[in-house]
Amino acid sequence: MIGFEIGARDGLARSGVLRTPHGSVRTPALMPVGTQGTVKGILPSTIRDLGYEMVLANTYHLHLRPGEATVASLGGLRAFMGWEGPILTDSGGYQIFSLAPTRRLDEEGVEFRSHVDGAVVRLTPEKALEIQRALGSDIAMALDECPPDPTDRPSVAAAVERTLRWAERTARARGNGEGPAVFGIVQGGVHEDLRRSCAEALAGIGFDGYAIGGVSVGESKETLRAGIEASARHLPEDKPRYLMGVGLPEDLALAVARGIDLFDCVAPTRNGRNGLAYTFGGTVRLRNATNSRDPRPIEEGCDCPACARFSRAYVRHLFRCNEMLGPILATLHNLRFFARFMEAARLAIAEGRFAAFAAGIPDRWGAVEPEDPGDPAPD
Amino acid sequence: MIGFEIGARDGLARSGVLRTPHGSVRTPALMPVGTQGTVKGILPSTIRDLGYEMVLANTYHLHLRPGEATVASLGGLRAFMGWEGPILTDSGGYQIFSLAPTRRLDEEGVEFRSHVDGAVVRLTPEKALEIQRALGSDIAMALDECPPDPTDRPSVAAAVERTLRWAERTARARGNGEGPAVFGIVQGGVHEDLRRSCAEALAGIGFDGYAIGGVSVGESKETLRAGIEASARHLPEDKPRYLMGVGLPEDLALAVARGIDLFDCVAPTRNGRNGLAYTFGGTVRLRNATNSRDPRPIEEGCDCPACARFSRAYVRHLFRCNEMLGPILATLHNLRFFARFMEAARLAIAEGRFAAFAAGIPDRWGAVEPEDPGDPAPD
Repeated sequence: MIGFEIGARDGLARSGVLRTPHGSVRTPALMPVGTQGTVKGILPSTIRDLGYEMVLANTYHLHLRPGEATVASLGGLRAFMGWEGPILTDSGGYQIFSLAPTRRLDEEGVEFRSHVDGAVVRLTPEKALEIQRALGSDIAMALDECPPDPTDRPSVAAAVERTLRWAERTARARGNGEGPAVFGIVQGGVHEDLRRSCAEALAGIGFDGYAIGGVSVGESKETLRAGIEASARHLPEDKPRYLMGVGLPEDLALAVARGIDLFDCVAPTRNGRNGLAYTFGGTVRLRNATNSRDPRPIEEGCDCPACARFSRAYVRHLFRCNEMLGPILATLHNLRFFARFMEAARLAIAEGRFAAFAAGIPDRWGAVEPEDPGDPAPD
Repeated sequence: MIGFEIGARDGLARSGVLRTPHGSVRTPALMPVGTQGTVKGILPSTIRDLGYEMVLANTYHLHLRPGEATVASLGGLRAFMGWEGPILTDSGGYQIFSLAPTRRLDEEGVEFRSHVDGAVVRLTPEKALEIQRALGSDIAMALDECPPDPTDRPSVAAAVERTLRWAERTARARGNGEGPAVFGIVQGGVHEDLRRSCAEALAGIGFDGYAIGGVSVGESKETLRAGIEASARHLPEDKPRYLMGVGLPEDLALAVARGIDLFDCVAPTRNGRNGLAYTFGGTVRLRNATNSRDPRPIEEGCDCPACARFSRAYVRHLFRCNEMLGPILATLHNLRFFARFMEAARLAIAEGRFAAFAAGIPDRWGAVEPEDPGDPAPD
């Protein structure tokens, strides 16, 4: 089980501590994404050194491979992946609707073909919880239905209704026994009234925390903001709120400003592997020729292992040569950048100046530096 | 410049210290291969932690990309790649004859097409030394001609003659100025008399050390042994001897027994990336299904960062999922295994029991564990 203590408020923003059986997490916090039981290319001890206290893993991927029975036989996911801190697991809903080549949905659950080997797999709310319990997750997500975007309103409304019925079954399946804390997931697409009714209904069921799903799927900034607001303001004040799959710095700021406590995002890792670095001055395309003799680190003043030792010129060289160390260094830097960003956000809340902090963040991370057209393709 | 002090002898085997302007190297020593200015996937600080004191880099690759002028403008290769210790650079001869799609050889030098972009590049003994000086190498290799194997005896003899003329030009080009120590390279294929005359002629020119090239190219163990012997016994006793591109544990042992001091080999890194781990008990195919629930580390009693924390089952999972951390962990383990192996060899020499040490090494690393035929292809 978990506890959540809000230490400071600043407008709707709050900073606090999420307590889990395997350690505390200062919030607002971003979780690095460890889909398959590994944050790509980075040792777990390094993840902690970079300033992270909780990681995300995926039920869908780990169920397909190596299977929760294997993970459980090896002491659970923490022992398996060598991460000593708490773990939050996604329920698999999002992945089934975005990764599986085919699926068949009914009231009982969802049947899909594995993207790994084509095997038919069936997931129900009860099964999703059981897998997450077997993995040894600290915080489990209820299985939800994630309609693709865009979807017509009646279909979104039906998905919300099913998500709520599945949330009730998840709560029943959980009982009062041992196991992870459980979060319900607010759906409702771009429809504020659907998000509100979903949030209120989930609160009525009662969860340890609440996630907001189905956002950051390409909608406008205004729609994103409205979706977060419509969800967050109707969730219990004293429980942690988790915005799934967000986000870039300016999205993190606008969500924290609306009372969100937890985030996960692949941007630091995936974009790092592709040669895109984040700095407080904006993004840097590490492959671009402008870096070819640049002796500066990726970001001046950054305390990450990449900036401590290596020049932009060297990192560019690594990317041009397809050397593994390039993606590794960029990932190390990006993870540290996002950790520093969240540290700065927490401090701003504690000091009552979050609005100024958020206002000082121009929208500079969405419009990324373009790739150098003259730069040869990776070879 | 370098110094070389032999501290202990045991038969022909010797242990000692190679002193360079950037640190000392206990010998016999294996150098990790950092072809493009990076030991693939591993931070330089970790290379040192794993027990290595000198690394190898390649003139051919670094000349083509990013170019020695770029490296020099960034403070030389040590600063560029973030490695604080000494660096030995290969001259490019071997790579030109094994990697370049076409080449044209004449007395002056060799012209070849870059495997990167097809550009025509010309290398001479003088140019090869100049590049290595610009890179800031501690130990440079003289450019040699490496005939492909098998080659008829007259052609090998001609290659030896050209290698010797190029060695003389390298010695002249070096003069008495600043710059790296320089090693000549013994060629001669499988012909003991050619190797002997080459070694003696190089010794007559006088180098800071001597390398043995053109071995470990698929010949039998007996031929390898004879080639090492025929080269090493005619080289000056007080200078370091470097066996290029070797090797596996039993080859390292037989070469150390014949007076070799330095080695480089891609086996720890390349084979690690491909899922083959080395242990004192033999090789382990990390992808094989037998590891699927094995809670043991890759090697019991190993003090590497992989074995300290991760099970074979987890490493296998990473390889099956094509996760970067799999190759990284296997490389960390293999590098540490080879460092421990060389530490054991040095200790055995110091304690006068190297023959027993070498005899205790069965030929178990050449015949690697077969790949599991039932294991699905990487997906």
